[in-house]
Amino acid sequence: MDFNESALELHKENRGKIEIKSKVPLKTREDLSIAYTPGVAAVSKKIAEDPESVWGYTPRGNWVAIVSDGTAVLGLGDIGPLAALPVMEGKAILFKEFAGVDAFPICLSTKDPDEIVQAVKALAPSFGGINLEDISAPRCFEIEERLKRELDIPVFHDDQHGTAIVVLAGLLNAAGLAQKKLTALKIVINGAGAAGTAIAMLLIKAGISDVVVVDSRGIISSDRKDLNDAKKELARCTNSAALSGDLAVALKNRDVFIGVSAPNILTRDMVGTMAQDPIIFALANPVPEITPEEAREGGARIIATGRSDYPNQINNVLAFPGLFRGVLDARIRIITDEMKLSAAHAIADCVPSPIADQFIPNPFDRSVAQAVADAVRQTGMEQGSNADSKSF
Amino acid sequence: MDFNESALELHKENRGKIEIKSKVPLKTREDLSIAYTPGVAAVSKKIAEDPESVWGYTPRGNWVAIVSDGTAVLGLGDIGPLAALPVMEGKAILFKEFAGVDAFPICLSTKDPDEIVQAVKALAPSFGGINLEDISAPRCFEIEERLKRELDIPVFHDDQHGTAIVVLAGLLNAAGLAQKKLTALKIVINGAGAAGTAIAMLLIKAGISDVVVVDSRGIISSDRKDLNDAKKELARCTNSAALSGDLAVALKNRDVFIGVSAPNILTRDMVGTMAQDPIIFALANPVPEITPEEAREGGARIIATGRSDYPNQINNVLAFPGLFRGVLDARIRIITDEMKLSAAHAIADCVPSPIADQFIPNPFDRSVAQAVADAVRQTGMEQGSNADSKSF
Repeated sequence: MDFNESALELHKENRGKIEIKSKVPLKTREDLSIAYTPGVAAVSKKIAEDPESVWGYTPRGNWVAIVSDGTAVLGLGDIGPLAALPVMEGKAILFKEFAGVDAFPICLSTKDPDEIVQAVKALAPSFGGINLEDISAPRCFEIEERLKRELDIPVFHDDQHGTAIVVLAGLLNAAGLAQKKLTALKIVINGAGAAGTAIAMLLIKAGISDVVVVDSRGIISSDRKDLNDAKKELARCTNSAALSGDLAVALKNRDVFIGVSAPNILTRDMVGTMAQDPIIFALANPVPEITPEEAREGGARIIATGRSDYPNQINNVLAFPGLFRGVLDARIRIITDEMKLSAAHAIADCVPSPIADQFIPNPFDRSVAQAVADAVRQTGMEQGSNADSKSF
Repeated sequence: MDFNESALELHKENRGKIEIKSKVPLKTREDLSIAYTPGVAAVSKKIAEDPESVWGYTPRGNWVAIVSDGTAVLGLGDIGPLAALPVMEGKAILFKEFAGVDAFPICLSTKDPDEIVQAVKALAPSFGGINLEDISAPRCFEIEERLKRELDIPVFHDDQHGTAIVVLAGLLNAAGLAQKKLTALKIVINGAGAAGTAIAMLLIKAGISDVVVVDSRGIISSDRKDLNDAKKELARCTNSAALSGDLAVALKNRDVFIGVSAPNILTRDMVGTMAQDPIIFALANPVPEITPEEAREGGARIIATGRSDYPNQINNVLAFPGLFRGVLDARIRIITDEMKLSAAHAIADCVPSPIADQFIPNPFDRSVAQAVADAVRQTGMEQGSNADSKSF
């Protein structure tokens, strides 16, 4: 099946994918008087007197803004806000389908981080959460940090943390399959953009101490003089052995390769130099760093990709719908690392008996979102970071 | 029926009124591959190469942002963006129900006109049109003007122009009932906010030369030293006889009273001083400037209010859904005065045989939106202001 042709057809026939729907009847004069004027004034008055009641009397608590400036869309790069629209729309229908979250694509006409922060803050009263999407690194780090600080609703850059959560989920089960201890895994991450950086940070948070990150210029280490602030921070937290060199150097005797980089970067010979029973997550899309066939020829049997036509797809849809369901329901203001860790464990636990051919849940496993939501809510309660304990 | 209690109940039970809905199936892996990755990349690429195709391949051309800062909500005043949310939501479901337009409430956390303009410009790529709502005067004038200049999609402040269109529609039929010529009517408008100002301007545009506007300090005239820029402009265009004094002075021997002001300002005695067969539009809500009963005691028989429980309701829902349907379908960039005039005529014509008890269409008359859309589209074509003739 030619997905491209079918996608063009589907989008043109339906003129896109999302529409608004009323949850209440609007057929009679009485309906109008209750859903709109004059009755609606009573609802507005109630919220004006008690702003908290906005969560009970409006849909704000179920709406997420999917915000993108179109600078890092799929593998297509900086294609602009208009071209990003179908992707954000797609994300919106996934939110609804998998977790009942109402999401709306906000594609921004500016790439200036200050203006993006300003705009998102301005429209925040309509939303219960902000999902940042496809914003290029390193701008995405600053934008997310500022919005987390300045808004009183949860902010989550899915390309970073959604990916990191699903990678960790996969690694939890992959380590079991390889009969290795998670925290003892020696890891190489190839790619130091939004995803690579967030994966490194979450793995460290999960207790993995030996992480090396490689970018297009080689292993990231404190010796390098060409690092931006985000990569300097990576250098501080990773590569404790102060390795330098290229990907081939980094891979020797390592347990895990995680690629969030570019097609065909990893060879079967390089896989052959890794530790016994190596774990290969080749996530570049649509063409991975190495095909599962070649990785197998190099000696690997525990393999994940970003593609739906191979087993073990690392797909963010396993994380973001349930995660937002949980934080919205519990009115969690800040999504903590602990919540990400528990989300990863919840996803891993959705595969009761992991085998090499399936150690990551199927993206269509409907139980995952609920499990993630429950886990996040539970961790939120334990951390006291929900609305009851913070002034919201 | 207690609309307040019912409204509170309805909003709480449903947690608001709007939700997002997918227009496409998302049940199988194949669905996902077409609506989202990898297929969606083909749609994004197409739009990146040909930005015009955003109108065919995404829902942008059917989505309107209902933008408010919550500074002038219903009769409640500056109640803030959260309390404005249920009203904007209500508007969204009216858009959908009456004209199939998908609309989303954007309630802004800022009241600063520069920041509002910035924010709306930033989120414009997601929308085919901007409906400004419940933004206080005179800020609303500047905000609308700037957005009209700086955006390439239509911008419409409904409190101004929607009201003006429906008032003119009512006046067209009311003049007929009073057997007076529309352009010869002597008019008093009480209230010089967003609605009063726009009504004055549209009536003048319709060829009515004798318009006097009264604000809380009396008749607006060039002599007054307390006028802001918007009112100075009003003074230039109205009151050619240079009247000064209060509402009672203004009303003497006049044909029409249009109130967009405050409860109980007009007395039956004042109605008695007006010209023969006076026309009374008492639009303050929920308590009008004069009740229809009292207006009748003062000698009037041609009466409209803003309320649904009296005949002849001046309700913006007669204008905005059809107007946006028309401009979106024809990809009209600027909503001109001529389009507003033809919308008013279309609404008036929806009452085939006007009588005093019904000279304005019922808000639930489903034929009105279509008639307005057709009229606006037609005028747009005649003016050549649609997408084909302007660089869009």
